[in-house]
Amino acid sequence: MRIAIDMDEVLADPISKFIKLYNRDYGLPLDTILDPGNEIYHHVPAHVNTKWFEYINEKGFFRDLPVIEGSIEALKKLQENNEIYIVSAATEFRNSLEDKMDWLQEHFPFISWQNIVFCGNKIIKADVLIDDRIKNFADFDGRKLLFTSSHNMLITNYERVDNWEQVLQKLL
Amino acid sequence: MRIAIDMDEVLADPISKFIKLYNRDYGLPLDTILDPGNEIYHHVPAHVNTKWFEYINEKGFFRDLPVIEGSIEALKKLQENNEIYIVSAATEFRNSLEDKMDWLQEHFPFISWQNIVFCGNKIIKADVLIDDRIKNFADFDGRKLLFTSSHNMLITNYERVDNWEQVLQKLL
Repeated sequence: MRIAIDMDEVLADPISKFIKLYNRDYGLPLDTILDPGNEIYHHVPAHVNTKWFEYINEKGFFRDLPVIEGSIEALKKLQENNEIYIVSAATEFRNSLEDKMDWLQEHFPFISWQNIVFCGNKIIKADVLIDDRIKNFADFDGRKLLFTSSHNMLITNYERVDNWEQVLQKLL
Repeated sequence: MRIAIDMDEVLADPISKFIKLYNRDYGLPLDTILDPGNEIYHHVPAHVNTKWFEYINEKGFFRDLPVIEGSIEALKKLQENNEIYIVSAATEFRNSLEDKMDWLQEHFPFISWQNIVFCGNKIIKADVLIDDRIKNFADFDGRKLLFTSSHNMLITNYERVDNWEQVLQKLL
């Protein structure tokens, strides 16, 4: 089985990085938790609510993101009997490409370059796609697993996984 | 119709860059033409025949490659009635990623980031794939157009296009 896996908010955690940067620059509390349905820009003052787009375009933004809990072990297990592909909508952010390669090399060295896809639209052929953005499911034929993140918590019409333990329960 | 198009030796010309670098460093004649079936490393002295791998990993290698004749106009025409995707096996060369983005932005600014795929294995869903490497056809379900390059000239069992004029004749 071929399993395609998104990066941001599935393997890597950009939200905590946004909060750190907004904390540094505008005092957003470090313990900010995004409300269901919300993006980071819903939680910051209006006059800086597009600042996240500057942060995300900076070199280094994606290089030191925390790893989502349980993802490394889960991918190792899934890889025993499946083809694992990382599929990230990275071409939107030219400066993210090297950072994402280096981050994957550091935390997921068992994923080869052959199995990494940096794209825009996810025009991929796979049996399963694990993603936190339903726009990436629009053109996907296989099984869709919506990985829970604050912004998608109000969406109900998809098979949902809250964490990597649940992914393993469903796919192993 | 969705048409996926490889970069190297289809839109961009790395061979002439290899020849220039081998000329600069080892005197390879600038008018070297690769024999049918040959790669660049078949045309250089044995003691430097892996040097191409160093060149290709250098920052900047992919940034100033010549554009393959007719490709810009052809993609513009094809884009009028088709979805055009650029699909390049770029993750093999970490240092190529930014260069390839910048090169596309310079020469093919009408291709949006949504339509760029940098990958290893080409696990894409498309109706047509134009590529010079038959390994990329192995797992592809659609129509395969082998874009002529020296190294593939002895391969006979694929539909072949010698240039962008022929691509347009076949696809328009």
